[in-house]
Amino acid sequence: MTMHAVDLIRKTRGGQELTPDEIAFLAQGAAIDAIPEEQLAAWLMAAFLQGLSLAEVDALTTAMKFSGEVFDPSPLGKFAVDKHSTGGVGDKTSFLVAPIAAAAGLVVPMISGRALGHTGGTLDKLESIPGYRTQLSLVEMEQVLAKVGVSIVGQTENLVPADRVLYMLRDRTSTVDSPFLIAPSIMSKKLAAGLNGLVLDVKTGSGAFMQRKEDALFLAALMVETGERSGTRTAALLTNMNQPLGRFAGNWIEIAEALDLLAGKRNPLNEDLRELSLILAGWMIFLGGVATSAKAGRHRAEEILQSGAALKIFTEMVETQGGDTSSFAAPEKFHQPGATKELRADRSGYLAQVDCTQVGWAVQRLGAGRARSEDPVSAHAGLEMHIKLGGKVQAGELLCTLFADRDEQFAEPETLLRDALVIGDEPLPDDPLIQEIITAENRKQYLEAANHP
Amino acid sequence: MTMHAVDLIRKTRGGQELTPDEIAFLAQGAAIDAIPEEQLAAWLMAAFLQGLSLAEVDALTTAMKFSGEVFDPSPLGKFAVDKHSTGGVGDKTSFLVAPIAAAAGLVVPMISGRALGHTGGTLDKLESIPGYRTQLSLVEMEQVLAKVGVSIVGQTENLVPADRVLYMLRDRTSTVDSPFLIAPSIMSKKLAAGLNGLVLDVKTGSGAFMQRKEDALFLAALMVETGERSGTRTAALLTNMNQPLGRFAGNWIEIAEALDLLAGKRNPLNEDLRELSLILAGWMIFLGGVATSAKAGRHRAEEILQSGAALKIFTEMVETQGGDTSSFAAPEKFHQPGATKELRADRSGYLAQVDCTQVGWAVQRLGAGRARSEDPVSAHAGLEMHIKLGGKVQAGELLCTLFADRDEQFAEPETLLRDALVIGDEPLPDDPLIQEIITAENRKQYLEAANHP
Repeated sequence: MTMHAVDLIRKTRGGQELTPDEIAFLAQGAAIDAIPEEQLAAWLMAAFLQGLSLAEVDALTTAMKFSGEVFDPSPLGKFAVDKHSTGGVGDKTSFLVAPIAAAAGLVVPMISGRALGHTGGTLDKLESIPGYRTQLSLVEMEQVLAKVGVSIVGQTENLVPADRVLYMLRDRTSTVDSPFLIAPSIMSKKLAAGLNGLVLDVKTGSGAFMQRKEDALFLAALMVETGERSGTRTAALLTNMNQPLGRFAGNWIEIAEALDLLAGKRNPLNEDLRELSLILAGWMIFLGGVATSAKAGRHRAEEILQSGAALKIFTEMVETQGGDTSSFAAPEKFHQPGATKELRADRSGYLAQVDCTQVGWAVQRLGAGRARSEDPVSAHAGLEMHIKLGGKVQAGELLCTLFADRDEQFAEPETLLRDALVIGDEPLPDDPLIQEIITAENRKQYLEAANHP
Repeated sequence: MTMHAVDLIRKTRGGQELTPDEIAFLAQGAAIDAIPEEQLAAWLMAAFLQGLSLAEVDALTTAMKFSGEVFDPSPLGKFAVDKHSTGGVGDKTSFLVAPIAAAAGLVVPMISGRALGHTGGTLDKLESIPGYRTQLSLVEMEQVLAKVGVSIVGQTENLVPADRVLYMLRDRTSTVDSPFLIAPSIMSKKLAAGLNGLVLDVKTGSGAFMQRKEDALFLAALMVETGERSGTRTAALLTNMNQPLGRFAGNWIEIAEALDLLAGKRNPLNEDLRELSLILAGWMIFLGGVATSAKAGRHRAEEILQSGAALKIFTEMVETQGGDTSSFAAPEKFHQPGATKELRADRSGYLAQVDCTQVGWAVQRLGAGRARSEDPVSAHAGLEMHIKLGGKVQAGELLCTLFADRDEQFAEPETLLRDALVIGDEPLPDDPLIQEIITAENRKQYLEAANHP
């Protein structure tokens, strides 16, 4: 029977479930430009407002994944695992967890993204290392993985083309922030790497795309469900993004911070980053079968970090992908912003609240992120935080240092930061770093709670 | 402040009300191709699922109306009135009510449409009169109105261009059947004729687009509300479309039937058509201030019909618009179908039920309607009903006669009609011809009942 997009739109509009074949017709039609954009747009809005069933989310993820080329890590003979974050400020855990997992005997084919909105991008950060190539073919990525065990690359042109079309349409039609559309978008790209295991870092709090905890929880459970349905062992951690993770936000300065931690240097201002990285790596190791529990995995991850093995593997990956690692011994020396500005406390008290999304926009406006996808980013723009939530501060004391290419760039970010960092009389309690853990075992309860179709 | 379509889509998606300026931005953007189709499509789906407020429906109607040229009947110095039907089978009331209203001293600038789906089109019927021109400019229409008092024409290229774009998108995106989108589409085109009064014939029952009575009622009230808000005295009649109206469905054969009634010839098989025409014309006359009530208007309409004045005016209009009226004296002689087929009852009983939409599709497949908008229609294809709902029939007696250009065209229509005409043991009660009347005075109760935003 011939399918017509107009009939499928009508079904979704009326809350009826589409078959996997019908979902595949839409996803494939998007990828090969066989369905007009106005029909895809109307279907996306219908799906946004009516929701999709778990089977539809699964079918959409699978159809999008197979809309282009996929990576097959099985010739490498190791458990393939990855970690994905829904996007945060100062989130550089990838540079720690990926080499730790590789050092534990797993392979990590990590296909990453660029800065988006107020959040930073793994690829932009890596490209602040002179020479580092993020655009590898799948064959080249397999060679790096065979040699080093980890390869962090950008999406190829032929990977999940359906998502490129659907994401562009969602962006233009106000249908971005639906869990039923976010989950297939994220999961199709991750699963196209042929993963055996996946750990999701789903952010919640003032710096997250999904600030309401129940929304983040539902999205996390939906992604775990989708991963498990496709045969990938999947776990999701709901983590706190109420302030930048660690000390720094930017590009090179985040690589430098990760290198410090990889080299065993510790600092009270980035204990949160170190802890989250070890927990995430622990879950990767546990899912990969190297440890008998996530806790044992965390223990193994810390051993690896302390041994220097992760630093060695990260350095080797960067060199194999063409990057110059001569800066790695003293990374702070290579942090050379064109201009610097200090932001000081105008009163005494405690850092009571941070509007972390606004902090992210400040970092973007400083030049570390991009307003349009074709804009360049500055390697050395960014932000250093000198205080964490709940910390005590005296009037006139340093809150943060801003880095940019030119002095003229400070005005707007400074205003944003003044508003974003709230000093109060009392140290307010913050949420814990890890708020929920969603696994194959407990995912159903979160899906039921949401009362979706 | 610059408006962005993506922000307006987000508002409607979230059930927020748009301002009239924002609605105008969308309608104007559709007309001049300034907003991409995928954004209009997403907005239409959001409006379909979330509904629009009365103020939004009003603003959309007004913005669409002013997206192109509008007609100004005020130089004619008479009350301008029209009648619009939501579409039926065998509905030829326009050919009666328009000349009756003109004979009562009103002007009737009737901008009509073509066959759509299972319903017939006024223009297609008129074009079965050799020479009749439906494509007049607004200046030509004004000249016909000044001379005759009535002019039935097609939409000009520049009339309500926003509707052309939005209707095409609705057709492709399964967003046709929303009262919030139907009302602006109908009313913008009607109000672009500068009407002082408008009578709406909203069909309900098995042959109507909106078969559920509550849906038809809500649409009717929404259109009355919209008309009244724009200063046009508006009334809507909810009427029975459970069987073809009158005896005939087709093109020339409907003109012929109307000419019979205009000439005073009566037949039990089309008393429903005569009665509905007189009631509708009565409302037009009442809204136009010529009668003190709709009932008095109906009385005046019947006087006019019986006087022959309406036939005279109809004939004069056809001649003024280039039509050959030599057939008008004996119209049945000019009904010359290429092929004829009789459908007889296979059992005795009563005509208990008619699936009137299926009857409409049979008429369309016989060649009287069109599958695609560019298809030609046959002037002489159609259907004659020999029995009305509730009528008694003997096995072997004639139910209806089918007309087509060629014998090969009968197979599918015959099957459709066999299924559509149900003979039962008992004469079932049918709904009354006029089921509800919605006016400026009582419209609010129907709008409240629907619990829309």
